[in-house]
Amino acid sequence: MAEKEPLIIREQGSFITGGVIKTTPGKINYENPGDPSGQTLHGDHAYVSYQIPADEPQNSLVFLHGALSSGIAWSMTPDGREGLDTLFLRKGYGVYLVDQPRRGKAGRSTLYGSVSGKTDDQLWYHTWRLGTWPNLREGAQFPEGAQAMDQFLRWMTPNTGDYDEKVIADAIAALFEKLQKGILVTHSQGGGPGWRTAILSNKVQGVIAFEPGSGFVFPEGEVPDPITSLSPFGPLSAAGIPMEEFERLTKLPICIYYGDFIPGEASTDWPQDHWRARREMAVLFAECINRHGGNAKVVSLPDAGITGNSHFPFVEKNNVEIAELMDHWIRENQLV
Amino acid sequence: MAEKEPLIIREQGSFITGGVIKTTPGKINYENPGDPSGQTLHGDHAYVSYQIPADEPQNSLVFLHGALSSGIAWSMTPDGREGLDTLFLRKGYGVYLVDQPRRGKAGRSTLYGSVSGKTDDQLWYHTWRLGTWPNLREGAQFPEGAQAMDQFLRWMTPNTGDYDEKVIADAIAALFEKLQKGILVTHSQGGGPGWRTAILSNKVQGVIAFEPGSGFVFPEGEVPDPITSLSPFGPLSAAGIPMEEFERLTKLPICIYYGDFIPGEASTDWPQDHWRARREMAVLFAECINRHGGNAKVVSLPDAGITGNSHFPFVEKNNVEIAELMDHWIRENQLV
Repeated sequence: MAEKEPLIIREQGSFITGGVIKTTPGKINYENPGDPSGQTLHGDHAYVSYQIPADEPQNSLVFLHGALSSGIAWSMTPDGREGLDTLFLRKGYGVYLVDQPRRGKAGRSTLYGSVSGKTDDQLWYHTWRLGTWPNLREGAQFPEGAQAMDQFLRWMTPNTGDYDEKVIADAIAALFEKLQKGILVTHSQGGGPGWRTAILSNKVQGVIAFEPGSGFVFPEGEVPDPITSLSPFGPLSAAGIPMEEFERLTKLPICIYYGDFIPGEASTDWPQDHWRARREMAVLFAECINRHGGNAKVVSLPDAGITGNSHFPFVEKNNVEIAELMDHWIRENQLV
Repeated sequence: MAEKEPLIIREQGSFITGGVIKTTPGKINYENPGDPSGQTLHGDHAYVSYQIPADEPQNSLVFLHGALSSGIAWSMTPDGREGLDTLFLRKGYGVYLVDQPRRGKAGRSTLYGSVSGKTDDQLWYHTWRLGTWPNLREGAQFPEGAQAMDQFLRWMTPNTGDYDEKVIADAIAALFEKLQKGILVTHSQGGGPGWRTAILSNKVQGVIAFEPGSGFVFPEGEVPDPITSLSPFGPLSAAGIPMEEFERLTKLPICIYYGDFIPGEASTDWPQDHWRARREMAVLFAECINRHGGNAKVVSLPDAGITGNSHFPFVEKNNVEIAELMDHWIRENQLV
């Protein structure tokens, strides 16, 4: 790694936000400690690790990972370079990395859950538009080599209980209430709970969403039909929510990024068609926000001259350029 | 929090060590991505987050958590003060926090696993000698207040697959092979895989173990009888290993700490008796190491004038003093 300036950190650590307490009826039996009667389980919270730079921070960035991921995705790259957390610390932001409820270090779930152990690396490799295993797509920004791929595939970590957007949004909203202000950065599946967090907490000043893949919301009565595609995950539906909730999304700037290898029209390659459907839904979502007076945009990175990115633009070889792009949007929207 | 000097960090990030690849026989079916045939699962690795101070580090400290925990335990205190990681960064060490295989951010397991959602906070509260719920023990060093307890109980995160000392030791040994040298700090259940890591990798220069509760090893033929107690977990057994493996533990300094509220003789209070048995086994373990020419000691913190600590001395109100004690032992043993 090239020599860089040292990082000057005012404060760092970890903490927990949100969560609920589950209690079994009855009386605690001290002498029979395996008896759940009267005992509690503190669960469904989020884990947060954070760092605040020595100079007065520009603002706070809260990073929410996607499916099968954790705060790990923002704290490293497959080839061992600085993650988005450190890049934004260098730009003067406070950074907050979340493990959402029932994932990673926040694995204590109030529900029964199971982990399959099923071999599915290539399902995700293909879904995430990395290429056709084991070959990366032509012009890919993903770091080359077996070691980088080994690191990347080991980022995956399972749900320890049912995925629940509301549970996640409750915990992240509690974080924003603690911070009092900040910008939410989401990835993929994190998009859905991200919109709901912004609805729950008016301390969310802006949202940057990388490749949201589910959880799109529209005002009741304006929900588009499901978008069909060759995706093995089936048609993509959106949810209807009351207008007074949706309106909150018209009160803050929203920027949605999609990477490369997503065609404008239906494709016979299912990973490309899967994302074609998702970006289509994102465009409808942004149009709906803007129709109601908001400020949302969908950026296809190749249209901005940035090519070769998969579903994980912020960890690829050009992640410094991606961070620049985000920082530019943040400043353009007066969020510092 | 009182104003402190900023931390000056040369390098930080995350990475993965160890792990295996599980493969389902057959050929990958690109068009039927849910078919596991030919697909892999990269799992059973450890997750590591690390920071290296700007000045040439004294040495590296690798922190391995205990049961139901993760790297979280070393990165915060229940009352929001600096964790052991930041305290040792300030002392000039490189710090490496592990989530062991099948725990936390390293939850990708090669095996099927399940999470019960059973209410058992008080089982652990009592086992860890915090007090009789909801009251802390008289003179406890554990931070007071409902908020601190809420944070602490939410540190718990479950196994996503069977607990396996060998799997854990393999992954941590891979970390030491990468670092080339360092000191291993373990807590509770982490003690067992800790000894096995030191046996696997001669890059482990010393071990500090907080309250090891299981996984004690002895040379075959010298294994003591199980120690019975009022513990609900049953009698405490030790494992026999070949002498050539055990001998490795005689080649490096080992320091084992136990906190307060552990009586010298059998107690009618099961949590105290549980730990009485464990400290007794630790004393036999250290005696065995020393009989074979090693350098191991068991320190009961009250004997060193440090009172009030539970099973988690390194996160309690006197954690700065605990860090001083560790640092003193490290220097005394020329490990810097």
